[in-house]
Formats: sequence, structure tokens, C-alpha cells
Amino acid sequence: MPTYKVRMIDIDTGEKSVIMNEQDAKGLMLRVHDRVMLTKGSSKVVARVDISDTVVRGGEVGIYADLRPVLPVAEGEKIELTVAPTPPSVDYIRKKMRGEKLTKTEISRIVKDTISHSLSELEIAAFLMAEEYVGMDMDEIEDLTRAMVESGNVIDFGESVVDKHSIGGVPGNKVTLLIVPIVAAAGLKIPKTSSRAITSPSGTADTMEVLAPVEFGVDELKLLLQKVGGYIAWGGSLNLAPADDLFIRIEHPLSIDPKSQMLASIMAKKMAVGASTLVLDIPTGKGAKVENFEDARRLGNEFIDLGSRLGIKVRCGITYGGQPVGHTVGPALEAKEALETLMDKGPNSLIEKSTSLAGMLFEMNGMAVKGNGQAIAKDILRSGRAHAKMQEIIERQGGDPKIKPDDIRLGDKRFVITAPTDGYVSVISNSAISAIAKAAGAPVDKGAGVRLYAKMGYAVKKGDPVIEIFAEREQRLREAQSVASLKPPFMIEGMLLEELPGF
Amino acid sequence: MPTYKVRMIDIDTGEKSVIMNEQDAKGLMLRVHDRVMLTKGSSKVVARVDISDTVVRGGEVGIYADLRPVLPVAEGEKIELTVAPTPPSVDYIRKKMRGEKLTKTEISRIVKDTISHSLSELEIAAFLMAEEYVGMDMDEIEDLTRAMVESGNVIDFGESVVDKHSIGGVPGNKVTLLIVPIVAAAGLKIPKTSSRAITSPSGTADTMEVLAPVEFGVDELKLLLQKVGGYIAWGGSLNLAPADDLFIRIEHPLSIDPKSQMLASIMAKKMAVGASTLVLDIPTGKGAKVENFEDARRLGNEFIDLGSRLGIKVRCGITYGGQPVGHTVGPALEAKEALETLMDKGPNSLIEKSTSLAGMLFEMNGMAVKGNGQAIAKDILRSGRAHAKMQEIIERQGGDPKIKPDDIRLGDKRFVITAPTDGYVSVISNSAISAIAKAAGAPVDKGAGVRLYAKMGYAVKKGDPVIEIFAEREQRLREAQSVASLKPPFMIEGMLLEELPGF
Repeated sequence: MPTYKVRMIDIDTGEKSVIMNEQDAKGLMLRVHDRVMLTKGSSKVVARVDISDTVVRGGEVGIYADLRPVLPVAEGEKIELTVAPTPPSVDYIRKKMRGEKLTKTEISRIVKDTISHSLSELEIAAFLMAEEYVGMDMDEIEDLTRAMVESGNVIDFGESVVDKHSIGGVPGNKVTLLIVPIVAAAGLKIPKTSSRAITSPSGTADTMEVLAPVEFGVDELKLLLQKVGGYIAWGGSLNLAPADDLFIRIEHPLSIDPKSQMLASIMAKKMAVGASTLVLDIPTGKGAKVENFEDARRLGNEFIDLGSRLGIKVRCGITYGGQPVGHTVGPALEAKEALETLMDKGPNSLIEKSTSLAGMLFEMNGMAVKGNGQAIAKDILRSGRAHAKMQEIIERQGGDPKIKPDDIRLGDKRFVITAPTDGYVSVISNSAISAIAKAAGAPVDKGAGVRLYAKMGYAVKKGDPVIEIFAEREQRLREAQSVASLKPPFMIEGMLLEELPGF
Repeated sequence: MPTYKVRMIDIDTGEKSVIMNEQDAKGLMLRVHDRVMLTKGSSKVVARVDISDTVVRGGEVGIYADLRPVLPVAEGEKIELTVAPTPPSVDYIRKKMRGEKLTKTEISRIVKDTISHSLSELEIAAFLMAEEYVGMDMDEIEDLTRAMVESGNVIDFGESVVDKHSIGGVPGNKVTLLIVPIVAAAGLKIPKTSSRAITSPSGTADTMEVLAPVEFGVDELKLLLQKVGGYIAWGGSLNLAPADDLFIRIEHPLSIDPKSQMLASIMAKKMAVGASTLVLDIPTGKGAKVENFEDARRLGNEFIDLGSRLGIKVRCGITYGGQPVGHTVGPALEAKEALETLMDKGPNSLIEKSTSLAGMLFEMNGMAVKGNGQAIAKDILRSGRAHAKMQEIIERQGGDPKIKPDDIRLGDKRFVITAPTDGYVSVISNSAISAIAKAAGAPVDKGAGVRLYAKMGYAVKKGDPVIEIFAEREQRLREAQSVASLKPPFMIEGMLLEELPGF
């Protein structure tokens, strides 16, 4: 067995890799990205090869930090290195790329090898692009969902729990902060794990964090659910369907979101918390993830089909996603608006959306006859019971239950954009509002974001405020203003867009 | 402008990247793979971000070796770092991913940003996968070809030159070593740049290198062409259509070979040497790159169409590629067989293939009437003029012109696989023969490879030699034997494949 001298290289590459001298690699006929098997005592690890003619000398192998936890070696020690075969999951990915259907075993292997970092980023990208272009049928999506569940933790709450989810894509969607307390106040158990923002100005976890801590261990979550009936926590550290994070890491820079992967990722996380009933919000409209009604309906039916295969009862609400939900975007602004709405001082659109989705859960669980769920949800909201439940949730999660909307600190660097003319607001751009809020600092700066004074169809007079930008730092405010000037966040019917020539 | 303290990191990543501390990255809302602009004096470079919480501290930025040539900084110096926008070429890639047609400007930008390492490997992968799945029309392929030419060197030989190319995929294809001297002996100018093996047991450059050096600068090549009328050189260092190497680096691990990219890459290299006439070999058959005749004909017509847009007259020869060409695979074995054939002692199949392709060039250049080209080529071969020209080429390239086939050193570790039964050879597997030759050490060990004593349709008797493995190292021979036992290189009609149960 050929042995090499170890040089430790203190860099996290995010992959299992080693660095070899160019001549050594050539002798073994290895190319960049090929795989080698490292053996030290009883530890065996497969890693991919980087090649250098400077960093390591002949006879040396550089071991990146990522391998340290799985390979007990130290600087200067000897380690065996041999050429490793390509894992079969690479063949399965190629099979999908050729347009063939994958078996349960093959899909499970791909997910396992993704999690163990046995597949390179390029190979995972190939899998996701094949999902995007070749697609998967419902059998494969079911297998993918189950494989994603099996590769991570599952939480058994020991009782029947319900869940809600939005497929995302529309800014300002703070409805979870209303639905969870409404549903929990009615006695259903709703263990809501949420994500932080990936590309949006505020994820639900970012918004909730303005009111209370959101990071808990599994035992704490079980206790929370048992005591309060609901919580809004960050799901990122719970290792539920962990392949999802690794897939997202590739999808995000490629700007792809294969439908099969979206179905599997969402449903895997619901299965992992044992949800029996799920209401799914599909925001639809220009600038949302789904742009037209037909696609939304098709997607909804696929979720229902997949759910029935997995034993989860699914109902979908196709909601209007062509402009932000409510009047605020950004963690603190959204938390404030949600709290105001719980105190019956919120905008009607937000009340309608959250009570209709909550009502669906009531109907699905035999707590309301069909058509009557929303009325019950509205009643819970208006009576103050939802607000009381939210106070209880905030307190149990470690926040201040007495918090008032005005206690929430918003960014004090502000700029108002007014209507340049009289008329009706004909467009509010999701993507421009998101870009402005992010440029202003959201979600890292909690007080940053955008408030909308007018929405689509509102009549405004010249000089009326339309949107207000909030930032915590002057520099950020200026960046947000510059984004707003390049990417108009709204249009008013009859508004002059540009005057040419420009003098 | 925020400044950071430089830490030099002596690793080639193959990309332009820096490493930032996790907190710094968070403050700038940067994620892994996002881009930053580095400014030092008048030098500005865009790099992608790796993130670590150990390698660099807050306020530091790690600069990988790849950036050293373009960024004049040293350990401990201060450098400005700001968030950089995504280059527009990323949007163009997304446009292609959505299925839209790209403009000339957009394609040109993608190629330029590939070469300048402004695109990440993942982004290039996305582009190539979109080419694979979405495809490109002939306008786009033409634009891609021209962009690839413009991004590299072009060689102006100052006279009309011809070229031949094989799209590859069939082992043992040493016909270039016959065609170049035949064509040059007739007075045509044929500046043949070839590649080394990427996935095959021997590229044409690897094979030619057994007889003479193959690495030359542009001025040397011009002199060679002028003096001898032809050469067989390695094209890798000439920077002709350099994007091709970067695309191949991604295509290879993904096992993709998008047709639009193949068309553009091949024709870009022909344009870059100013070829006016091209004969293209399309090996077709099981295990070759193109498996059926209809696909070969379609591909051939696309090459002809693209050629006419670029001012290159193309003719295609669809040849049988369902088994290796001739009787040998591996650099030294192939060089020997080519030399034997030039001395009129080679196999008939090799003579037929090379003279028919050479004859097409004669017909295209008015040196033979249609249907008569091959006869002229055979005459040049049989008369010894092609051999004399090859001796001249070998001598001018710095090899020994008097070299005899038996002077060529073959690996002395050998193993013969015999026919296990009487019968006709019904299958010779391209992929198994390639895998065996590579396991035996080809192309790095020049003497390694495979000799075929029988080909498809040959009658053999039990115990007759069918293939012989050559290796330079005992260990390699054993590996090749083990590959041969797992992946049968041939089938004989009526041969028992396996006996069950196995005792």
C-alpha cells in the first residue's frame, strides 16, 4: 500500500478533499475531482483530489480541515492512499441525466452520499439540473421525500400535530405569526419550524426573533408544544431532512428551484415533525414563485397527491402573491404589523389571508364545517384569544409577553418616496421591494425594511407617501435609495417614467 | 472604503477566490460563492468568497494563489474589499436555462467571463447543462464558435490549409498518423493540432509523441508547415479557443458532452488555424460517441451547415466505430501499427479508413474527381511516398526518421486472453478495451495498451489468442487483468458467460 506524509491544511472547503502533488497524481492517473481512499488504521475515508505543484511536495498529501473529524491523523504522520472508485450514486445521477426513472434505492443512495459529502458540488448540481430539466414522476418524488426524511432526525411529539407552510416568494408574508396563535388558541397542536431568509428580506424565523428567541433543542420544543400548543422556532439546527440545506446551497447560486425538489423538501420537513394535516399557502401572481393560476392549481394537486402517499392530509390555499402581503417588509416592521393585527389593529388583507388559512385547518380537523372555518378563526382573532396565546408563546420562548407594537425598534434612518403624480397605483413590484429592503440591511439589521402606504389600486395624490425605507445605518439607507431609483418599486397610472432627452 | 489585512494562502483553487471571516461576511450579507471587488491601487479584481471562522480572523482576507498574478499585494498589507455585483453573464446563463435564445453579445460575454475565471465552476456547469437540455440553435452555435475563436490565439499560415478531425469515442483511432503524411505528400498543407487523451487510452498527440516531440510554439509550427507541408503537434499550449479546456474540465466529471458545445469547440479550433477545408470522421456504432446512423447523419449535416456559416468547407465520413480501429490501442502500440501501415504492412481496415478520409480532402481541393480520391490516396500510401513524408515530418519534429516498427518499445509485462471456445467473435467492446488499456497504464505509460488478434466476425478456435494486454509495471498488468475479468472485452458466439451455481 503506498503511503504519504500528512500535511494538515487549516481550511474548510465544505467538501471532503485532499491536495496531492502534481507528479504523484499523474503517477496514479488522477485528475482534479477524482476520488481517493485514505486509510489510517481502521478509518477509511473517500475524498476528492485537488492538485498542486507547490502546496505539497511529492510523497505528501494535504488534508483539509473538513476531514479532521473523520480521519485521526496529525501533521507528519503516514497515511495510505489509493485510487477509489466513483460511488454508484454518480451513475444514478447520470441515469437521471439520461432521462431514466430512478429506483427508491438509487434515490436513497444519492441523498445519503449528498449528506456524507461523498458527492461533489458539481455532481449535486448535475442531479438538481437533471431534476429541473428531465423532471421526476410522483413515485420518484415520494422516494426522494422519504429518503430525505430518513437521512435526518424525526421528532415524535406523541400526539397529532398540524402544520402550515408557504412555498414563499412573496415579501412581507408574516401570516405564520397570526396563524400559529389562532390555531393553538383553538386547541390544535402546531409545532411550527421556520427558516431564516435565504434570498428574501425576512424569513419567518427572522421576524419571530424580534419578539422572542427562536433557537431550541428538540426536548425544549417538545415541552413548548406540550405546554403552549404551538411555537414558532428556527428549524435550521434540528437536522430535519438535512439534505435540503445542501441542495439549497447549490440551487441558490444557480437560481434553480426544481419542482420535484421543492415538493420533496417541503413535505420531508413536514413528515419529520409528524404532521397529520397541512395547509399550504401558494402565493400566485406576477413576481411570486408561481405566476399563474393554472400552474398554482397543478402544483397544489401535486402536493395533495404526494401528501396522500405519505399519510399527510394536505389542503392548499392559492393566495394573491402579486404584491407584498400587508404593508410591511423586514423583520421588525413585520413583527410590529403582526402584533398590531393580533391586537385587532391590522390591515384587512392580512386578517383575511391568515384567517382563511387557519380556517382550513379547522375544517380539516373536524372543528368547523366546510365554509365555516374562517369565521371561527376571525372570531378567535377578534376576541383577543389569539393575542393572549401569542403572549403565552412569546413568554415560553423567552421573550417579553407584554411587548407592545410601539416597543419594537425600527431603523431610525428613513426616507419616504412620494407619488410623483395623481392617480391609481397600478403596480407594486415584489422584486423591487425585496431588493430595496435587502439593500437597507434586512434581515441582518432587524430594523431595516420597507413600509407601504399605498398598495395596488389605491388612489394617491401627487406628494402622498407611497413607500418608506427604514435602515439602521446611513450608508445602507443610501444604498436602498439607489436601488429604488434603478428599480422602481411602484407605478402610478399615467406616471411619467422618463423624460427624453434628459435636460 | 473598508479595508482588510491580507493573508496569503498558498493554494491554487482553479478559481478566483478569497476567504473571509464568517462575521465579516455576515456584516456584508455575503454568502459562499458571492462576489467581492478587491482594490489595491489601480488594480481591481472580482473574486468569489469562501467563508471560514478559523482560517482568517475578523478584518483579514485570505488571498488564494490564483489571484497573485493579477493582484499586487503581500502578506499583512491592506486591501479594499466591497461587495461586487453579479456579472451580467450570470443573467445570460439563466436566460438560456429558462429556454430563451441568446444573442451574440450575450454568448461572447459568457465565453469571456469563463476564460477570465469570473464565472464559478457551478455557473459554467449550469451553462453547459442548459446547452445539454435546452439546446442551442445554429445562430447561437455560430456565435459560440466565433466567441471561442476570438477569445484565444489564431494562427495565420499565410496560405490555404486543410484539416481533418475525428469526433472521437472509438479507441485505436490512429488514422491521423496516416492521413497527414498522405495529404502532405500530395502537396496540400495540413497543420494538424491534436489533443492528449482526456478519457481515452491514447490521444493522437500521445501516440505521435512515441515517434517525435509534439510540443511547439506558433513560430516553429509555421516553419514546420512551410518546410514539410504537415505536422502532428499537441494543440494544448497554443491557446486556440482556450475556453474549450475550461468547459471540458466541467463536462468531464459531469459526463456530459452537449452537442452545441462539441460543434463549437471543434469548429473554433479549425477556424483558429484558418482551415479552408475540413474532413470530419464521425465514428458510429455501439460504444462510440454516436451510436446510430441517423444521428450521425444529422450531426454531419450540422457540421456542414456550421462550416458554411464560418467559411469552412466540410465533408463528413461516417465510419464504423463499433469496435477499435485497427488492431492496437495505446500510444506505442498504435504508433507501431501506424508506422507498419505506412510501410504497407498494416491491416486492411486501417488502410481503407485513412485513405477514404484523405481521398475526400483531395476531391474537395480539386485534386481528384469525385469517387477517385481514395484511389489516389492508396497510391500515395502504397508507393512509399506517404512513409517518406512521415519520415520527413518525424525528423523535422525532432524524432528519429529511421525508426522501424520493431524499434518501438512496448510494455514487457504481457498477458494473453484466449478464446474459451470455438466460434465467431460477435462483440468487441470499445469501453472494455479502453478500460483495460487505461488500467494497464495508457496513456501515461507509453508502452501500455491492448493488441487485438481477432476482431468482430473473425472465426477463432478454443485457445486462440484474442487480446493481449501490455503494461510497463507488474502492478498495472494485474489491475488490467482484473478489469478484463469484470468487463469482458469480447464475446464469442456460443460462449458460456457464467455457470450457475458457481461450484
